[in-house]
Amino acid sequence: MAETDMTARSRVAPDAMRALMERLFVRAGIPADDAATAVAVLMFSDMHAIDSHGIPRMRMYLNAIADGRVNLHPKISVVMEGPATLTLDGDQGLGLVVAPFAMRRAIEKAKETGWCTVSVRASNHLGTLSYYPMLAVEEGLGGMSMTNAGPLMVPTFGTIPVLGTNPFSVAFPGGNHSDPFLLDMASTSVAWGKVEIAKREGLPIPDRWAVDKDGAFTTDPNTAVALAPLGSDYAGRSQKGYGLAVMVDCFTAMLAGGTWSMRIPGRGTGTHDHPGTCHCFMAWRIDAFTDLESYRAQMDDMMATLRATPPAPGHDAVLAPGQPEFDGYRDRSVNGVPLHQSVRDDIRALAEEYDVPYDLD
Amino acid sequence: MAETDMTARSRVAPDAMRALMERLFVRAGIPADDAATAVAVLMFSDMHAIDSHGIPRMRMYLNAIADGRVNLHPKISVVMEGPATLTLDGDQGLGLVVAPFAMRRAIEKAKETGWCTVSVRASNHLGTLSYYPMLAVEEGLGGMSMTNAGPLMVPTFGTIPVLGTNPFSVAFPGGNHSDPFLLDMASTSVAWGKVEIAKREGLPIPDRWAVDKDGAFTTDPNTAVALAPLGSDYAGRSQKGYGLAVMVDCFTAMLAGGTWSMRIPGRGTGTHDHPGTCHCFMAWRIDAFTDLESYRAQMDDMMATLRATPPAPGHDAVLAPGQPEFDGYRDRSVNGVPLHQSVRDDIRALAEEYDVPYDLD
Repeated sequence: MAETDMTARSRVAPDAMRALMERLFVRAGIPADDAATAVAVLMFSDMHAIDSHGIPRMRMYLNAIADGRVNLHPKISVVMEGPATLTLDGDQGLGLVVAPFAMRRAIEKAKETGWCTVSVRASNHLGTLSYYPMLAVEEGLGGMSMTNAGPLMVPTFGTIPVLGTNPFSVAFPGGNHSDPFLLDMASTSVAWGKVEIAKREGLPIPDRWAVDKDGAFTTDPNTAVALAPLGSDYAGRSQKGYGLAVMVDCFTAMLAGGTWSMRIPGRGTGTHDHPGTCHCFMAWRIDAFTDLESYRAQMDDMMATLRATPPAPGHDAVLAPGQPEFDGYRDRSVNGVPLHQSVRDDIRALAEEYDVPYDLD
Repeated sequence: MAETDMTARSRVAPDAMRALMERLFVRAGIPADDAATAVAVLMFSDMHAIDSHGIPRMRMYLNAIADGRVNLHPKISVVMEGPATLTLDGDQGLGLVVAPFAMRRAIEKAKETGWCTVSVRASNHLGTLSYYPMLAVEEGLGGMSMTNAGPLMVPTFGTIPVLGTNPFSVAFPGGNHSDPFLLDMASTSVAWGKVEIAKREGLPIPDRWAVDKDGAFTTDPNTAVALAPLGSDYAGRSQKGYGLAVMVDCFTAMLAGGTWSMRIPGRGTGTHDHPGTCHCFMAWRIDAFTDLESYRAQMDDMMATLRATPPAPGHDAVLAPGQPEFDGYRDRSVNGVPLHQSVRDDIRALAEEYDVPYDLD
């Protein structure tokens, strides 16, 4: 967050953002209930300071709908079901609708069985991944989410992208005095959005993030065409980021019988086909494993100990995983969401294109 | 593997290694059945070219036993059990005995329910992590393993180690023509053993692996006291490696009600207490999610596509995750295990100390 100039931002009331996004989705043909479900995912991002994945993505979703890449009225169906497992077919619906349905089923089944894993095929972009395990945490459970994506990662020793950014997110409930544990990470070194931001601002990128068309590291965002795995190179153990991306494709596409990264239409391919993105969700009851009181006491000890680690020169403190998101939520739920002028301009233009009222200024 | 001088190695028959290690464990007080279980884990490493975690670790295990850090006759008990979940107390037994028991229970329960997650407390060092999911793969299931460990990782922006290397391993069965998928990774940039090898050989280490007593990166293995998370620093997204380590402590210590990384006696603390290491194991039936034939066909497509990625200059090919291990197994099961002279010297010395026959030369 410190990377963005906050002076060009002004605070916007969450309710106004929510209502405007719902109007846009409904006007684009999404049923009202589904629009509310989808906007809840996006608002989670905006409220938790995950500024890349909330309202700024509205144009991407509306374009996907306009291009026919989204089934507006999906019939989500059960492919296979057991007491702790479920495979769903999303019928090419909006990921922001299919994925919340799948995660809620995981939570319901985990409440009965203790653990449930749900694999999903034939879906679409599902928004910020951390929304899903946090649905579990809201109900006192732990949760996990994964999704594959079109090819953007060059594997270790390779020259062209064959895997997606393939992110995953895990959350566990906090203790009596601590926030939850929340991890949300791509298998690549960074998200592609970081390269795009550098391009817009005319700045170089660190030499370990992205590669050019020959697969060589570049600091010029204009020549970057794909991303390095987490770890960047062999010395930094990029085979781990590469392996994590394959792991995500195993839990998503392989288990669901869907489309793996390389077979998903990638960025800029201009296809109007359904992407067929695959996800995986897990939920588990903490009290299926241990008693809640000792769990909470231990989480308090761990989170407090991590935050009390002596900081390195130039840093105020060591952060607990998820702390920027929860700190962001505390700020924004009181003060509103800071939206950059360029985002408000884009949303106003969308409102005009879709002929719905704009009221964020 | 290419990092070690092979000229100082000669090939040893696996059966001789196995028998010698069993003799040593039995002489140290481990019951014969348990000794066979423990040695199977170590031999998996030696056979799969994971040379850091097999027979060279015998001294570490025997020292732990001699120092009273291992309960020779553990009564492994059920703390909590549900249809898809299980929590075990390892009673401070040898991890090489407790962990295989736990993984086999995960596999048995997953065969019934489709998925099982087993959390384990009060255990000890469990050998190479990839052994456990590969037990599942042998029976056609997928599997996962995790363990925490004493503090060795400095969190992002911190100066002292508060988390273990906290590794995890995942495996999925292969297709009709491909090896399984296998990932085995620490949450740190590298294993501590890499720093120790550089120290022995008088070589510098890459500047992104380890830190000195002030938490600053060092290329001198003699001043290195702890490891950086995977990603190395903030620009390389070390908060992901840091977050993965906390995730592992959540799935192991928090779920099992056991000891988290920072509370485990660390390297060189000289304590004779039981470490109380915690693990987590998962197993799942592929055919609980999808039909096996389409699964195998897709795995073949993915693994072949990954290996066919055009390689970067200076590299012969892109490797599939797990390929070095499976290639190593094919070689060693025919030609025997290459053991460095220093390892054979150490094992001979152990055989003398424990008064058992030595026959590896």
